[in-house]
Amino acid sequence: MTLGTRIRELAITPIAFSDPPLLNSSGVHEPLALRCVLQLVLEDGTTVGLGESPGGTDRLERLRTAARVVPGMDVFDTTAIAAAIDAALLPTVPSSHERGWTTSAVEVACLDAQGKLTGRSVSDLLGGTVRDAVPFAAYLFYKWAGHPALDGRPAIGDDWGEALDPAGIVEQARLMQERYGFRSFKLKGGVFPPDEEIAAIRALAEAFPGRPLRLDPNTAWTVETSRHVARELDGVLEYLEDPTPTIPGMAEVARSAPMPLATNMCVIAWEHLRPAIEQGAIQVLLTDHHYWGGLRRTRELAAVCEAFGLGLSMHSNSHLGISLAAMTHVAAAIPNLDTSCDTHYPWNSADDIIVPGALELSDGCVKVPTGPGLGVELDPEALERAHRRYVDSGIKDRDDTGYMQRFQPEYERKLPRW
Amino acid sequence: MTLGTRIRELAITPIAFSDPPLLNSSGVHEPLALRCVLQLVLEDGTTVGLGESPGGTDRLERLRTAARVVPGMDVFDTTAIAAAIDAALLPTVPSSHERGWTTSAVEVACLDAQGKLTGRSVSDLLGGTVRDAVPFAAYLFYKWAGHPALDGRPAIGDDWGEALDPAGIVEQARLMQERYGFRSFKLKGGVFPPDEEIAAIRALAEAFPGRPLRLDPNTAWTVETSRHVARELDGVLEYLEDPTPTIPGMAEVARSAPMPLATNMCVIAWEHLRPAIEQGAIQVLLTDHHYWGGLRRTRELAAVCEAFGLGLSMHSNSHLGISLAAMTHVAAAIPNLDTSCDTHYPWNSADDIIVPGALELSDGCVKVPTGPGLGVELDPEALERAHRRYVDSGIKDRDDTGYMQRFQPEYERKLPRW
Repeated sequence: MTLGTRIRELAITPIAFSDPPLLNSSGVHEPLALRCVLQLVLEDGTTVGLGESPGGTDRLERLRTAARVVPGMDVFDTTAIAAAIDAALLPTVPSSHERGWTTSAVEVACLDAQGKLTGRSVSDLLGGTVRDAVPFAAYLFYKWAGHPALDGRPAIGDDWGEALDPAGIVEQARLMQERYGFRSFKLKGGVFPPDEEIAAIRALAEAFPGRPLRLDPNTAWTVETSRHVARELDGVLEYLEDPTPTIPGMAEVARSAPMPLATNMCVIAWEHLRPAIEQGAIQVLLTDHHYWGGLRRTRELAAVCEAFGLGLSMHSNSHLGISLAAMTHVAAAIPNLDTSCDTHYPWNSADDIIVPGALELSDGCVKVPTGPGLGVELDPEALERAHRRYVDSGIKDRDDTGYMQRFQPEYERKLPRW
Repeated sequence: MTLGTRIRELAITPIAFSDPPLLNSSGVHEPLALRCVLQLVLEDGTTVGLGESPGGTDRLERLRTAARVVPGMDVFDTTAIAAAIDAALLPTVPSSHERGWTTSAVEVACLDAQGKLTGRSVSDLLGGTVRDAVPFAAYLFYKWAGHPALDGRPAIGDDWGEALDPAGIVEQARLMQERYGFRSFKLKGGVFPPDEEIAAIRALAEAFPGRPLRLDPNTAWTVETSRHVARELDGVLEYLEDPTPTIPGMAEVARSAPMPLATNMCVIAWEHLRPAIEQGAIQVLLTDHHYWGGLRRTRELAAVCEAFGLGLSMHSNSHLGISLAAMTHVAAAIPNLDTSCDTHYPWNSADDIIVPGALELSDGCVKVPTGPGLGVELDPEALERAHRRYVDSGIKDRDDTGYMQRFQPEYERKLPRW
């Protein structure tokens, strides 16, 4: 071990940032989304590796467990670091998927620090890039015009407007294309009865002929409904994402669906790969380095997809720039990650906590940052503001369903719903 | 790209080194084994990455093709380098497995150079070590006492002696244990009628109770014979390696074999994984970074094994210290490569072309070198001697069968033989 490459401290900062009222199969996004920012400080006292993870009470607590485990370990020993964190979480976190969120965030921070130590970009540490820019899809949501006034808080508008029908979705897609140059589109469905969402996809196909389209109802449908939608959208969708819950359910749909089925819900841990592949449940895996174990594990997952002829794309949660940089580096490094990736970034980028300039979404792509590590720099004031918002808000956990019920008390979370 | 990290030149040096008369299912090792040494020189003029590959006319020619492709590429772009070499070979080398031998050797040289540039060991570049020393198995061979005199060349003896029956094999195993501390044993079979080899394994089990034992007849047996041997060695073998050819053949044997079946012969390229797993043909994969695409690809292959519950071990050809260093780094980095690996090193180490001291086989293990890159240094005089032997010998290709026929003209290569 080289002196100075040991980890001195892992600092975890919970933050909150603005989020529009985006609808999904569980409710609606609250005005604030939560993340955690990781700063991994090495014993040299100057090298700091950055990471970003979803927030919430449990995930914050698990990151704090990780912060107790890693001091003294060598930042290049990412495999051993992940094993140590995993072992520390195992007694209280039985889900390997859930433990993966923690180990992943730390791995990214380690790779950022490694890149800064060696003067190389994170993609170089993953084998170099096979593309200079990573294409992303416009992530379309049904949405309200703004957050309604609530409990004395005034209404919060945004410059995206309302989208509650096919015309609204097409208009949102046009704005996305105009602002960021996206060349493929994904609609978050599971919000309205399936035939309305079929109509929205058809309207997109008419407005953007030849552009890849995806629909993701987040398991809002039964097998029978999923089959109906798949038949109706034959020839229109690039892939249909998580129409119904569980591997056996997806396998049933896949037997008759004319398009590939994709998932980031029924295959979310290494032990799900074998049954999903054996049952033919999916044809496209949406990877996400935030829970598959980090960037190197994402490359390994891509190799599993390669060996078994599965397509590969990328999932996104509401996120900021550290995550986008990591997503871009890994997507640029993996040859078979060759479809456009998901990103929520246009919905949240205004509140980013990195110094502007390193990441730009244009022509539907993000150019791979070339600086050392992730190639992004933390803005300490922006981080402090975002942390202050977290503290002041009193919000500890995401609750799309509870927030929806403030406006529609009869709303019930029900999956599948149709 | 940082200045100075581009590749200036890939120098390929064919070499020959002493090899004892080791018997296998295709004949007997000749007095000289062939390898190629790679020296990847960067534009900084001082950084040189080392690699080692099997020799032979075709593989030498393909490495020379690679040497025409890589100048000007960045040494960190290993994925793109492999793709460029692969594309250059594709028109004349249809086998992806065969192309893999070339891309793999270059990847190792790139990682060695990267390690030297960044001051990190190759295992650090692979995620750090999960074990400080890598266990290897004693690689036992039926063998003649020495190479007989031939065409005016005098006989060549060695200090291992003859091993042509169970007693000889047990004696060789004792020598291996005494000299290197091995704690597991693999017998290269396929040489004598199966019942004689069963007797040799039983003798080893008696002489070394509780030690893992393996038998590898290199596809010398029919399915029926394989089943017979498997039944006879129930409870004695850790695994049975390549008893019979082809994935369907192995699958037939696997259905009744009481022990795991292993292979480095029927699953040797990415496209073989799916059919082998679907058919249940193997339970242990013997990886080999020399043809699976290099060290990072070996990690990816390990992830496939992890996802599908396959065991993982490591294959070896006759090799010298650059290969042993690479094998040790990758085996130390992969958590599920947790059985002892194969190595021919005791048979060939006397003629090594690296500076002595970096690699030592003791207690059956090789400690992971901690210096930058592979942690081994080329001995230019030893390399020159080995190259001179290659040139002077006139031997261009390995021919175990032809060499055997010089002494036993009636010998016929026949697989399966029994």
